[in-house]
Amino acid sequence: MSFDDVIELAKRRGFFWPSYMIYGGSSGFYDYGPLGTLLKDNIIAAWKREYAREGAIFLDTPVISPADVFRASGHLEKFSDIAVKCSKCGTPYKFESLIKSLGINEIAKTVDEAAAILEKYDVKCPKCGEKLKNPYDFNLMFRVGSNDLYLRPETAQGIFINFKNLYNYARNSMPIIVCQVGKGFRNEISPRQALIRMREFSQAEVEVFYIENDDFPIPDSSVELNMLRNTGDLLKMKVSDALRSGIIGNRVMAYFLNKTYEILLKLGFQPDHIRAREHDPGERAHYSSETWDFEYLLDGDWTEIVGVSDRGTYDLGRHQQFSGENFQIDGRTPKVVEPSYGLDRILLTIMDSSYYRRENGYKVLRLDPHISPIHMAIFPLQKRDDLDKIAKDLFEKMKNIDPFIFYDDSGNIGRRYARQDEIGTPFCVTVDYQTKDDETVTIRERDSTSQVRVKISDLLERTRSFPDSLSALFSN
Amino acid sequence: MSFDDVIELAKRRGFFWPSYMIYGGSSGFYDYGPLGTLLKDNIIAAWKREYAREGAIFLDTPVISPADVFRASGHLEKFSDIAVKCSKCGTPYKFESLIKSLGINEIAKTVDEAAAILEKYDVKCPKCGEKLKNPYDFNLMFRVGSNDLYLRPETAQGIFINFKNLYNYARNSMPIIVCQVGKGFRNEISPRQALIRMREFSQAEVEVFYIENDDFPIPDSSVELNMLRNTGDLLKMKVSDALRSGIIGNRVMAYFLNKTYEILLKLGFQPDHIRAREHDPGERAHYSSETWDFEYLLDGDWTEIVGVSDRGTYDLGRHQQFSGENFQIDGRTPKVVEPSYGLDRILLTIMDSSYYRRENGYKVLRLDPHISPIHMAIFPLQKRDDLDKIAKDLFEKMKNIDPFIFYDDSGNIGRRYARQDEIGTPFCVTVDYQTKDDETVTIRERDSTSQVRVKISDLLERTRSFPDSLSALFSN
Repeated sequence: MSFDDVIELAKRRGFFWPSYMIYGGSSGFYDYGPLGTLLKDNIIAAWKREYAREGAIFLDTPVISPADVFRASGHLEKFSDIAVKCSKCGTPYKFESLIKSLGINEIAKTVDEAAAILEKYDVKCPKCGEKLKNPYDFNLMFRVGSNDLYLRPETAQGIFINFKNLYNYARNSMPIIVCQVGKGFRNEISPRQALIRMREFSQAEVEVFYIENDDFPIPDSSVELNMLRNTGDLLKMKVSDALRSGIIGNRVMAYFLNKTYEILLKLGFQPDHIRAREHDPGERAHYSSETWDFEYLLDGDWTEIVGVSDRGTYDLGRHQQFSGENFQIDGRTPKVVEPSYGLDRILLTIMDSSYYRRENGYKVLRLDPHISPIHMAIFPLQKRDDLDKIAKDLFEKMKNIDPFIFYDDSGNIGRRYARQDEIGTPFCVTVDYQTKDDETVTIRERDSTSQVRVKISDLLERTRSFPDSLSALFSN
Repeated sequence: MSFDDVIELAKRRGFFWPSYMIYGGSSGFYDYGPLGTLLKDNIIAAWKREYAREGAIFLDTPVISPADVFRASGHLEKFSDIAVKCSKCGTPYKFESLIKSLGINEIAKTVDEAAAILEKYDVKCPKCGEKLKNPYDFNLMFRVGSNDLYLRPETAQGIFINFKNLYNYARNSMPIIVCQVGKGFRNEISPRQALIRMREFSQAEVEVFYIENDDFPIPDSSVELNMLRNTGDLLKMKVSDALRSGIIGNRVMAYFLNKTYEILLKLGFQPDHIRAREHDPGERAHYSSETWDFEYLLDGDWTEIVGVSDRGTYDLGRHQQFSGENFQIDGRTPKVVEPSYGLDRILLTIMDSSYYRRENGYKVLRLDPHISPIHMAIFPLQKRDDLDKIAKDLFEKMKNIDPFIFYDDSGNIGRRYARQDEIGTPFCVTVDYQTKDDETVTIRERDSTSQVRVKISDLLERTRSFPDSLSALFSN
């Protein structure tokens, strides 16, 4: 299915849509509808479980931050894009995207270099044809109120400045893996492609604090990864081999590149739809000495969904310098590797990657069952002979165990399956005439469309989860 | 335990602490540490389950909103506090809190009335003694960037403006219960009491859209509720009886007052620690015709944790008027009842309500197991004779099923229990010498401190949950 099909599905079934449409819309903002909200929740929960398994700890800090934080982090000074505004029609452009869209293969690191490129290629406004000039630095941070406050452009800084509290929580042991899920904000010059570049977005970031590279083992890779080096070489190899042959700079980077790849595969991406691309030195953020982006081929463009950066001692060092705190352990400032996940992009690309058409023409969203918005649908085979009453009873009982389920008795059973397939519901339970005889129902699995018949009591028992399953041990 | 004990516990064990302390702090902002982040996650998940059981749908809209939204909602014009600033020392005061703290029993609805009260009681700055005058309206919304954008003061507006999309999702059926969890922002004049009044906070809001009052049944109350009417009468009665005797205005208000009470009890509040207080007409927000606050007695003050308001047709009506959209159904604008939950306040007051000292002096956080940050701790009885190896193996296996668990082998078993009790861990599993004989472990329950012995395989099976429990049916 095409990107347009995904956007159409998202709007029609209630995954996401542009915000503020009754007031004419506001560029760069999207709403998650009922199914999108649940899908996003489930992606976050699955992601958290994966990092909790690594022994990670979690943090949740404000999105509003005083300027001090970004003075230290370098964002006040350096977190900007080069922009150019048409002097005639007023359209603003992000310089980098503009020249890329015009097929000009140049990189500008300064405003002066950008001006020279505009001149050299005689770049004109794509909208009105006016010659473009006077590019400028455009800081991407949103200022808040009249105070010296900003909306954070990344969740990471809230973790760095808390290093001492986190080290204390970890009983003064290293390494420490710290995760934060939350909003980030960038005053993008030209938002695009629905959830891909927004002014307000959700991130899941990990800051790995460590002293020695061998704090982590060589990763136990099982699946080969497509890797595009900044030399232009395209390789397909295990992350562990890429580490051994020096393609990846150090063991901690390798460990979390591998972890990230595993998470993406668990979330349901196909290995062939994913690549890791090494940043050029000139392309890296100001804090990074090595960065690999995990990219997904979306609508013809390789699109970043996760970035894994070696931030070294940059951030803790800067915050020590600006705050006067001492973050050193035995005289050494901990180093940092950061896997940073774009949650909105992951949600959109998972939908893109999962959406397909069966041979019979029906559409299916083949989401991993751990992240499906609706866990289960319950149907009566017919809306008569008490089948609907039994199905509704089962629905009510099941809701007490797992409420993210759906009851449907409209249209024929084939249409009901199709409606659930399209939104990724993994299991459909049908109450039929045999149910009246032996209290069994069928469970139909989305991808195989195969069915098994189980006792209702077995179905209920299998969906019961922590902590009720354990509390029951103490109930008498 | 006292409020100070809770704050001390929160800081020491990593539930929450003031933000930006390495840069001198920033009033009104708090960080959730590792345990607080998990506790908040779990409260949100429990809350979502409760509303999902009611058939609610979920929405997730941006925190940045164009001014149009707040022009329509009335927030641009009316969402302000009366403030007064000392002309000598510069200390700003929220007028209402100031005169309350001085024991003056008056209400000012306008700046002029406030000025008259300051004059009448000859109010002086509590800090420097200067006479206070010239009160002013202070809009509580944060402006963003140089555009006409604001940080939302409540999540509700994102729901109202999406009414058509939501009605469409609900297949054009009413009533519709819509939930949103997210950040809200208020530029508070005087933040206070840790998580109680912050500039950035988390809300869980519900907008119930309905046409007829009998869209909802008379609630099936089981526990009596302490109700303080705005006449001053204090009653203890079932919500259903309060509806029947006209104390609560309509059935939908009653249904969701009752639902809210049930949720608070399920989250672990004691009925006697909670009351519902009816707002005075002059105290209600500009959109409300009836409001009841659920309050908890915190540190000697009754503190709002949930507000349930009858917003009538105010919001949809205003957005129709300002946007030109038509939200009517069969010629009638749907009405709205709104239960609005302050998540930070609930988290803090649950901790306050759950924290106690056993007879032996040990401290316990008696959290409901559904919301405990750590689900289970695993210990070896001794750190020798392979007990630690067996316990670590079990820990690794369990992490694959439920990763929110903790391994501890330091100190004696009594100290380990105590450390877990204090943070609310409901179950502690101990590997002992008998484990080597029969592969059983003990599970010790926090509140009763009673123990049961189970097979390791049984323990693992009981913690297995959806969807793996069902996927197993299709695995061969």
